Amino acid sequence: MIQVQLSMRTLQKGVKRLHINMKPKRIMRPDDANIAGNVHGGTILKMIEEAGAIISTRHCNSQSGEHCVAALARVERTDFLSPMCIGEVAHVSAEITYTSKHSVEVQVNVLSENILTGAKRVTNRATLWYVPLSLKNVDKVLEVPPIQYAWKELEEDGKKRYEEQKLERLVTKQRNGDIIFPVFNPEPYTVGYSQSSLIHLVGPSDCTLHGFVHGGVTMKLMDEVAGIVAARHCKTNIVTASVDAINFHEKIKKGCVITISGRMTFTSNKSMEIEVFVDADPFVDEPKERYRAVSAFFTYVSLSKEGKPVPVPQLVIETEDEKRRFEDGKGRYLQTKAKRQVQMQPLTQQ
Amino acid sequence: MIQVQLSMRTLQKGVKRLHINMKPKRIMRPDDANIAGNVHGGTILKMIEEAGAIISTRHCNSQSGEHCVAALARVERTDFLSPMCIGEVAHVSAEITYTSKHSVEVQVNVLSENILTGAKRVTNRATLWYVPLSLKNVDKVLEVPPIQYAWKELEEDGKKRYEEQKLERLVTKQRNGDIIFPVFNPEPYTVGYSQSSLIHLVGPSDCTLHGFVHGGVTMKLMDEVAGIVAARHCKTNIVTASVDAINFHEKIKKGCVITISGRMTFTSNKSMEIEVFVDADPFVDEPKERYRAVSAFFTYVSLSKEGKPVPVPQLVIETEDEKRRFEDGKGRYLQTKAKRQVQMQPLTQQ
Amino acid sequence: MIQVQLSMRTLQKGVKRLHINMKPKRIMRPDDANIAGNVHGGTILKMIEEAGAIISTRHCNSQSGEHCVAALARVERTDFLSPMCIGEVAHVSAEITYTSKHSVEVQVNVLSENILTGAKRVTNRATLWYVPLSLKNVDKVLEVPPIQYAWKELEEDGKKRYEEQKLERLVTKQRNGDIIFPVFNPEPYTVGYSQSSLIHLVGPSDCTLHGFVHGGVTMKLMDEVAGIVAARHCKTNIVTASVDAINFHEKIKKGCVITISGRMTFTSNKSMEIEVFVDADPFVDEPKERYRAVSAFFTYVSLSKEGKPVPVPQLVIETEDEKRRFEDGKGRYLQTKAKRQVQMQPLTQQ
Repeated sequence: MIQVQLSMRTLQKGVKRLHINMKPKRIMRPDDANIAGNVHGGTILKMIEEAGAIISTRHCNSQSGEHCVAALARVERTDFLSPMCIGEVAHVSAEITYTSKHSVEVQVNVLSENILTGAKRVTNRATLWYVPLSLKNVDKVLEVPPIQYAWKELEEDGKKRYEEQKLERLVTKQRNGDIIFPVFNPEPYTVGYSQSSLIHLVGPSDCTLHGFVHGGVTMKLMDEVAGIVAARHCKTNIVTASVDAINFHEKIKKGCVITISGRMTFTSNKSMEIEVFVDADPFVDEPKERYRAVSAFFTYVSLSKEGKPVPVPQLVIETEDEKRRFEDGKGRYLQTKAKRQVQMQPLTQQ
Repeated sequence: MIQVQLSMRTLQKGVKRLHINMKPKRIMRPDDANIAGNVHGGTILKMIEEAGAIISTRHCNSQSGEHCVAALARVERTDFLSPMCIGEVAHVSAEITYTSKHSVEVQVNVLSENILTGAKRVTNRATLWYVPLSLKNVDKVLEVPPIQYAWKELEEDGKKRYEEQKLERLVTKQRNGDIIFPVFNPEPYTVGYSQSSLIHLVGPSDCTLHGFVHGGVTMKLMDEVAGIVAARHCKTNIVTASVDAINFHEKIKKGCVITISGRMTFTSNKSMEIEVFVDADPFVDEPKERYRAVSAFFTYVSLSKEGKPVPVPQLVIETEDEKRRFEDGKGRYLQTKAKRQVQMQPLTQQ
Repeated sequence: MIQVQLSMRTLQKGVKRLHINMKPKRIMRPDDANIAGNVHGGTILKMIEEAGAIISTRHCNSQSGEHCVAALARVERTDFLSPMCIGEVAHVSAEITYTSKHSVEVQVNVLSENILTGAKRVTNRATLWYVPLSLKNVDKVLEVPPIQYAWKELEEDGKKRYEEQKLERLVTKQRNGDIIFPVFNPEPYTVGYSQSSLIHLVGPSDCTLHGFVHGGVTMKLMDEVAGIVAARHCKTNIVTASVDAINFHEKIKKGCVITISGRMTFTSNKSMEIEVFVDADPFVDEPKERYRAVSAFFTYVSLSKEGKPVPVPQLVIETEDEKRRFEDGKGRYLQTKAKRQVQMQPLTQQ
């Protein structure tokens, strides 16, 4: 509830700063959704990223000078507050909330509207970071025109967020590349039982004007794999509940083959955490080796036929590595739960 | 009924002129349709335009000389005679009916076939105008090879249609660019209550060999927005009934962001007229400002669960501008109604 | 060369039997092609199958009685005679050439037209077998209305083809389900080096009115995997040269996850043979186990930047199984080569 209010306030501020508020809309179609009619989290992430890319590319080109395209560098942790359905209209509004010398912070809000009843609800709020890359030389990061802040505090808060994410990006960059090994004849509910991977040949529509994969396309594929892992584990209708912060360290070029792999790391009573890796193989053009481009944690819940969350089968742990990853996942789970309770506090005390 | 007959006669004429008749076919899929299973008018407009682009590009390259691609300049008023459904096969046949020095008139007929029962019915008849643009220099309009007419009258009629549309295109070019402003907390059934807009980043598959957006892609997006406006207003299943003449004055380039906005202008007892604007923002490549690329009027009807047209809530008018637009819409509505009665006359007198 | 002539003769026969010839057309878009601009073989297979499904569904419903949808049972060996490019128009014509009591043979021809130069060339000829399944009870095969033959010989030839394919289908049904095992740190040019797999969640647009996957959708995904295997092996631009006969023994239902895996089995001097498996996992709805739905052999050639076939790296064989599969592939390769020389004979002797 509080999230709705926050969101509306942000929107009102946005109105003051004309030209940086945008509202793409789209009706959700059958192919956007699973059999139960719930829109895939990946479809929503892709819309969010497209809105972010448009607003930050526009902003970064607003001063005369070298032309550029804004490339996604990071998405902050994103919660899916309520499922969206086929036939509903998704409203995506984006606003630039902070600019550093070389990066742009964009806040994106997604509302779902049932056009028959007129009912609207917030389904997502996401924060994304973009970096402007020169159209002439894709390895050159350009400078970002500064934005005006309504209050000084807004700038200071933004700077704090900027520093925090910068630190986190450094940490994940150093995290070494784990690999998902295949398992033969896995027992039910083990990690090997549900792990999955897919390959995708990067085509023209996946790419920006630079010829690099849109961050949103990558996230959609990641959600697809994670969703299959979750569904294989619990064999029910599943929906994306949240995505942990994702860092895009390495660009992926048109013509690459990308491998997206997912494995379950943790289960709570009613949720499953899945780790997803994206590896790029620039096999045609270049002598470059296969490399890890992105990794992230997705959380899913299992829904009954009436759309209520139901308990999930517990993950069966077999190795020391799996145990370590389970404990890490539990840590993330408890931390998120604690944060949520803190956010609720003021509201319940009022 | 009379429309079907007219259409069949036209087809017969087409048969005489071999090599300029073509028939693309496609099965309608769930993503082509709304929840009630009716294929979106925009999907049909897109198929129509693809057929028109193929036949006129082929014709304009039929003489040796500079290669060109035919670009859509105008679509005449188009009626949707009966809804098409998922699983049906759409038959699209196109025929060149007139050529001026620099433009081609194409008539396109769409038949819907239920392959289970074998039943076929005409769903659309459209007239499109194309202009051949050089592949080497997109600003150069090439000459069109003349076609042969079976009777002299056909050529004379064509010339009359050519002159008429030329005049109309001039008029709309001078129409100044209206803008749709957002409205906060709009009252039910006002213009602000249902107005909508969407943003689309132009990708490679949206474009011709020149790198410009296909007219059909633009029309599909316009229908999507107009459909959302109509559904928000009457909160029932709606279908496209007709589209007024659309002029494509300005090309839209790959990489642009386009904003498509729609607002209701007029309601009759059982129909709604929606005005749609397309604005292009070439935000990366060029110093060019955002510009109005296309505008058009779409008419929708509301259907009951049994698929019968039902009355729609009347539009609540609040401003002088809205009143003027409502009167203009009423004018178009009465004119169309009168024309239809004239067309019916000969039949009722037989 | 001879194939072009044969094709044209077939088309002429088709013209005599009106009502069973159809021609869908479509412009090839960037998303249909690889980086070099060559349209994916899978895109062409999908168009072929859609044409076959339409014509045979229509034929099987042409007599009054229970409604049905024609389901793909088999595709005969298909050669890709010349690559199709972005911007060209694909013409697909289909004709029913034989009917048994419960199956329909459809011949599909694909022509590629450069609408700028007007040049047309045959790119494919394919033969497909369909079986009509009742819309009420998908396990019930209905009877096929017989067609009229222009000459008695046409019926006799058709019967021979029918008996042959029936036998072959039985043989492949008994072939037991091989599995592709993953390999760690494979050496360059070994089987493990290039083997690939992808998973796909079956969505509404992949399916027929019955809720089963279109054969064409499956073939497109198979070509996608096989193409990635080929490109990983030779790291150049590759194109589909042919597909061996494919039998569709088991239907795949909406909501399934399908795994498509490919491995290289044989290399000649300038071609690569890839075996592809499709496994379906009906994990949500049913208690059914994962099962092998389809398998097939695809042959690819490697092209230079000028579009000429170039030598491919030879496959490095490591195990007895790989050796056996290589010899089997060599057998298929030599058999095809011999057949082609027999077909050439009459022409050189004329």
